[in-house]
Amino acid sequence: MKLKFLTSNMHKYNEISAFLGQLGIECQWVKMKYEEIQGESTEEISRDSAVKLSRQMDDKFFLEDTGLYINSLKGFPGPYSSYISKTIGNEGILDLLKNKERSAYFLTVISYFDGANVLTFQGKLNGKIAEEEKGKTGFGFDPVFVPENCEKTLAEMSIEEKNQHSHRINALRSFISYLGIED
Amino acid sequence: MKLKFLTSNMHKYNEISAFLGQLGIECQWVKMKYEEIQGESTEEISRDSAVKLSRQMDDKFFLEDTGLYINSLKGFPGPYSSYISKTIGNEGILDLLKNKERSAYFLTVISYFDGANVLTFQGKLNGKIAEEEKGKTGFGFDPVFVPENCEKTLAEMSIEEKNQHSHRINALRSFISYLGIED
Repeated sequence: MKLKFLTSNMHKYNEISAFLGQLGIECQWVKMKYEEIQGESTEEISRDSAVKLSRQMDDKFFLEDTGLYINSLKGFPGPYSSYISKTIGNEGILDLLKNKERSAYFLTVISYFDGANVLTFQGKLNGKIAEEEKGKTGFGFDPVFVPENCEKTLAEMSIEEKNQHSHRINALRSFISYLGIED
Repeated sequence: MKLKFLTSNMHKYNEISAFLGQLGIECQWVKMKYEEIQGESTEEISRDSAVKLSRQMDDKFFLEDTGLYINSLKGFPGPYSSYISKTIGNEGILDLLKNKERSAYFLTVISYFDGANVLTFQGKLNGKIAEEEKGKTGFGFDPVFVPENCEKTLAEMSIEEKNQHSHRINALRSFISYLGIED
């Protein structure tokens, strides 16, 4: 079996292809940037992108959108996690949380175009923002995010270890279960 | 003369209609929300919105997009100023700038659909981020923005006073000059 994954982000491709590879599924990387709307939620943005791309693609594909939601910051950085990671970065997140409650979650929404319709699959990871950056693996906010019941940040884990917990793989599990594949 | 201004933001409408009113131009408020893309720049977002709306409007109109760009934060909050104002707000901006250089600018890009094409007009306002919030007028980041050569924040000014400086009115001046109107 083969699945086409649309993303310009190598880290996302690596995580997803590592997991699918273990199940004997080939993950084909369609490396492209596509337009995203300024939506209210990760689901709205993910679905909208897939619906628009489905008009120009002649084959099935999936894509994903992921956001980090910090509860004491009204969900910031939320749908704009990628832009905010590139500008204020982890240092900025830590500056914003001095003396604030640190609970947060990652949310991934996979949108799958099955040739006729777009279906969405969600994956969530609860946790908290660390007191300082730790670790060198992963990308984005991984060095400041500690999953629930863990002592380490996501950036202190190998891809295989991160994939045991992650929002992205939780969404992927839901997606492949829909396809009738057991993990 | 009459100009149609598309916005869901009452404050923007009030500023623009006050200025146009002084010139004897009627500003008609088309109060609507419309979709914006996650663009790289305020110009790209403003133009894209106008181009898409022009396909469903049967008359001339203009709209605007505005961003606050803080130099020491790589341009943050930039194109996502509205979302970031609603989440971390002015308190968050002040937290991010402790021990950082405070120069910043506002940029407004007006996009005008003339019945056939979309034209853009820019207005900029240089200044710096204040040490604390001051003032109650205006909206968004006005309480923390001090224009160049001013002692007060934009939120300590009346609409008329703000309009003497503002990015939004600078863009409007460029736009009405193109229309052949003298201010």
